[in-house]
Amino acid sequence: MQTTQIRLASRPVGEPTDDDFAFVTDDLPELAEGQVLLRTIYLSLDPYMRGRMSDAKSYAAPVPLGGVMVGQTVCEVIESRSDRRAVGDLVLAYTGWQTHAVADAQHTRRLDPDAAPVSTALGVLGMPGFTAYAGLLEIGRPQPGETVVVAAATGPVGSAVGQIAKIKGARAVGIAGGPEKVRALTEEFGFDVALDHRSPTFRDDLAAATPDGIDVYFENVGGPVADAVNRRLNLYARVPVCGLVANYNATSAPEGPDRLPGYMSRILTQSLTVRGFIQSEFEPTLFKPFLADMGEWVRDGRVRYREDIVEGLENTPEAFRGLLVGRNFGKLLIQVAPL
Amino acid sequence: MQTTQIRLASRPVGEPTDDDFAFVTDDLPELAEGQVLLRTIYLSLDPYMRGRMSDAKSYAAPVPLGGVMVGQTVCEVIESRSDRRAVGDLVLAYTGWQTHAVADAQHTRRLDPDAAPVSTALGVLGMPGFTAYAGLLEIGRPQPGETVVVAAATGPVGSAVGQIAKIKGARAVGIAGGPEKVRALTEEFGFDVALDHRSPTFRDDLAAATPDGIDVYFENVGGPVADAVNRRLNLYARVPVCGLVANYNATSAPEGPDRLPGYMSRILTQSLTVRGFIQSEFEPTLFKPFLADMGEWVRDGRVRYREDIVEGLENTPEAFRGLLVGRNFGKLLIQVAPL
Repeated sequence: MQTTQIRLASRPVGEPTDDDFAFVTDDLPELAEGQVLLRTIYLSLDPYMRGRMSDAKSYAAPVPLGGVMVGQTVCEVIESRSDRRAVGDLVLAYTGWQTHAVADAQHTRRLDPDAAPVSTALGVLGMPGFTAYAGLLEIGRPQPGETVVVAAATGPVGSAVGQIAKIKGARAVGIAGGPEKVRALTEEFGFDVALDHRSPTFRDDLAAATPDGIDVYFENVGGPVADAVNRRLNLYARVPVCGLVANYNATSAPEGPDRLPGYMSRILTQSLTVRGFIQSEFEPTLFKPFLADMGEWVRDGRVRYREDIVEGLENTPEAFRGLLVGRNFGKLLIQVAPL
Repeated sequence: MQTTQIRLASRPVGEPTDDDFAFVTDDLPELAEGQVLLRTIYLSLDPYMRGRMSDAKSYAAPVPLGGVMVGQTVCEVIESRSDRRAVGDLVLAYTGWQTHAVADAQHTRRLDPDAAPVSTALGVLGMPGFTAYAGLLEIGRPQPGETVVVAAATGPVGSAVGQIAKIKGARAVGIAGGPEKVRALTEEFGFDVALDHRSPTFRDDLAAATPDGIDVYFENVGGPVADAVNRRLNLYARVPVCGLVANYNATSAPEGPDRLPGYMSRILTQSLTVRGFIQSEFEPTLFKPFLADMGEWVRDGRVRYREDIVEGLENTPEAFRGLLVGRNFGKLLIQVAPL
């Protein structure tokens, strides 16, 4: 059996180019005992992958040059040497940017297509949804009546943050780019207020939308949006930091002025809590409650989600570039093969 | 009865000058029921006072122009219209930069001169000691074997941070300016390692002193010291932010490059907790345990302290300028009048 893979050919400088990736078709090894052969259906694209392309110090090792780009997938088992998985099973796996793969059955999770569409295991009921749930509830700790702000708010993390904030009785203010996304925030996802960060009056709009200041800023973008939000953080506000997509393609520190002293001063005078996190930290304790809560919320319509599905593995690099600048609208998935 | 006061004449731009203060001698009002007349013995000078001279948004209102500069004091009661306080009592009060004052007896705390020298109520057994205790234990949470770093380490907060860290089984690395202070860190305060931030090899010295990285950075200075420390913070490191004295005289954001994106990225990739605080947040729950613990540690010699006493209210502005650049050596007090 063969697989077509996208390998990391060089470490991108700034925005990843087509030359940073190599498409290679190669033979897969024979299955060993306990392994399964998988056919990729959906590949998840997520901003953290930009970090894996870099060899800067981080919580995770970079993808080696020449290695297959990593990523979560939903796959079908097409051959099995494990009692755990049968041919035809749909599973969650971490097989990366490729059409087929051999994996240890124990590193896959079986999905029940009757419980929810299997693609949701990569989105609202998967890593992005769990990132929103754990970061908002463990670090953000929104209280009834407080104001929660999140950017990239039509994305899989941001939309879940806003909807969970509402469930917890907080006011949800969402920020997105462009009128279509902004409209979806209130009409589809139930945010109290939606703001367009591309508007020339964005700072004033934000002030008007947060008359009592901001108690929780779920940070997943950084950049100028964060700058505007930071000025409105209340005493004891919490800032879960789960992503900084605005910075991911940066090749050096931006020109001055140096905003760090001002930010530290704000942390001090407002008694802020700024806390970086990766969802895996909370998996041992919170993943089961997450699946129970979020499963229920999705079933009863209190949490909605949107998917942006791009057909064909060959379109992965371009779709990934779009993700970093917000061209997708909802959870970005590559449909590598039909379900 | 008259008092000589130091009033805020203008809001300093950069380092406070003599012109920013006005010395005025004025009549005190008659005592009302429940009030006491106080003679100031010790006036505490602390970095937070620079913030009170400014009208930037903060957790506390600024001193109004023409108002007496605020500050904690140790005073003697020289007249009383309260059952709570007798003439001759020594009390902790918040009467500011002046020789005499009228205060509500209920806003004073009686000090026992037999339990500890009364000046310690402004230092190791007072606000600075409590700042160290609450920030380190509630936010820093040092574990046995972890590495705790603190700057301005011969100051009243820093020296307490290092010594409490040792009591909790952590390794204490102190940073100070100049050979005399550096020597005191290991010889007097028991730090494991002492570093001079003025040394041209400071960054290398810090790396050598923290081979396992840094788990807690108690932030009370900011500036280049913080920059060097931040690069060595471990996964899940905690940064209680209690002061940024290096920035207090700044009049604008420094020139670039802009270090904020890099700092946020470090918070994210290292899952850092950065938490600003003012000790008053923790007073309701922790002040009693603090007095019990710290009183015991001071009595049995496990926590030592050093005072830098400047004679004469007239020397207050110059002493305060020195405090902001580290010219004091130990807790800075003005001896306004003899005990």
